[in-house]
Amino acid sequence: MTIAVVLLSGGLDSATILAAARDRGYECYALSVDYGQRNRSELVAASNVARSMGVCGHQVINVDLTVFGGSALIDKSIAVPIEGIKAGIPITYVPARNTIMLSLALSWAETLGCSDIFIGINAVDYSGYPDCRPEYIVAFEKMANLATKAAIQGNKLSIHAPLLSLSKAEIIQQGEMLGVDYKMTVSCYQADESGLACGMCDSCRLRRKGFEAANVSDPTRYK
Amino acid sequence: MTIAVVLLSGGLDSATILAAARDRGYECYALSVDYGQRNRSELVAASNVARSMGVCGHQVINVDLTVFGGSALIDKSIAVPIEGIKAGIPITYVPARNTIMLSLALSWAETLGCSDIFIGINAVDYSGYPDCRPEYIVAFEKMANLATKAAIQGNKLSIHAPLLSLSKAEIIQQGEMLGVDYKMTVSCYQADESGLACGMCDSCRLRRKGFEAANVSDPTRYK
Repeated sequence: MTIAVVLLSGGLDSATILAAARDRGYECYALSVDYGQRNRSELVAASNVARSMGVCGHQVINVDLTVFGGSALIDKSIAVPIEGIKAGIPITYVPARNTIMLSLALSWAETLGCSDIFIGINAVDYSGYPDCRPEYIVAFEKMANLATKAAIQGNKLSIHAPLLSLSKAEIIQQGEMLGVDYKMTVSCYQADESGLACGMCDSCRLRRKGFEAANVSDPTRYK
Repeated sequence: MTIAVVLLSGGLDSATILAAARDRGYECYALSVDYGQRNRSELVAASNVARSMGVCGHQVINVDLTVFGGSALIDKSIAVPIEGIKAGIPITYVPARNTIMLSLALSWAETLGCSDIFIGINAVDYSGYPDCRPEYIVAFEKMANLATKAAIQGNKLSIHAPLLSLSKAEIIQQGEMLGVDYKMTVSCYQADESGLACGMCDSCRLRRKGFEAANVSDPTRYK
């Protein structure tokens, strides 16, 4: 079987791509990143999702991005917006987060001798983040194919972002077909320790709207 | 003054680029990465170099790459080669290390509102690492210019690798002119806690040869 490294945040999107990667026949190694995110319960959710999907391995790697700050997700003095989704890049954007996560996945992939990395970003129902755009993923893949020993040896690495052009509803429908238990996932930017969602942040709004549009009962546990 | 983020390992090359960036008029923020490297004294050296060069700030960020392994620099069960430099990529290569470091620098740069990152890689007297090649840096810069909010807002980010095409001797000569105190730097892959170098690993050999070729007295403290 071919192996893959799957970035797993514990949210809805990454749980879906883990299921999708498994469905495509990959043996999956799940990678979660503890970057000091406000929502600590997503890391617990990631562990539960990884276990329930029978991954070959799950690593949680620590990178303390709070020393840099600059985002409501890692700086508790900046409030998470709850007024509804606005145009532009919101304060929840974490500088270079996806680049750091993909770089860590690249490192593990190379160590494992793996040529496939999955990331659950999507460019439709997203929050205006620059590192969720298709052209960004293409550029990362190109860079990664110059960065590693494997690349020099002719093993092409692929970054898979299968949710890139799906709506949140389509993602949920795909996950439902693949048997994802969304009750285990936590998307809220400021969920409490037990994983209860605020229902008001952009992430909660996108998720709730997604379940409605998908005509799937929303299993999210709200405060 | 324009600010820059400078990746500072505590070795000879990065000390030189910190001096070079300062000489070009940048206010420098030094970033060191504790990735679980065998040589712990290089982080002490990085702090000393940062302080002596009067940086605006110095951060040491922890990313425990030992969980991935796969390199003699982070896995103590793999011996550092001491037989001399051979063709090919040595076991001291750390998978995706420069990509991870540049990604972290990108994050800090964006938070600081900074458009210039310096990295002390070079492609001449290097050890065959894939992520020390000019085409890799070009690809990283291109990716970085799609990854960030700053890029969307039209602020072009530059990755400066001014040592890329210099020999070790030329780097040392440049550093001498800029007043770098190489006694403070540690290049050895397996220096002991007090910074004493083994004199036998590839990094020690390249450094020693560099001082000889530059006709500069070698201040390295060997075991």
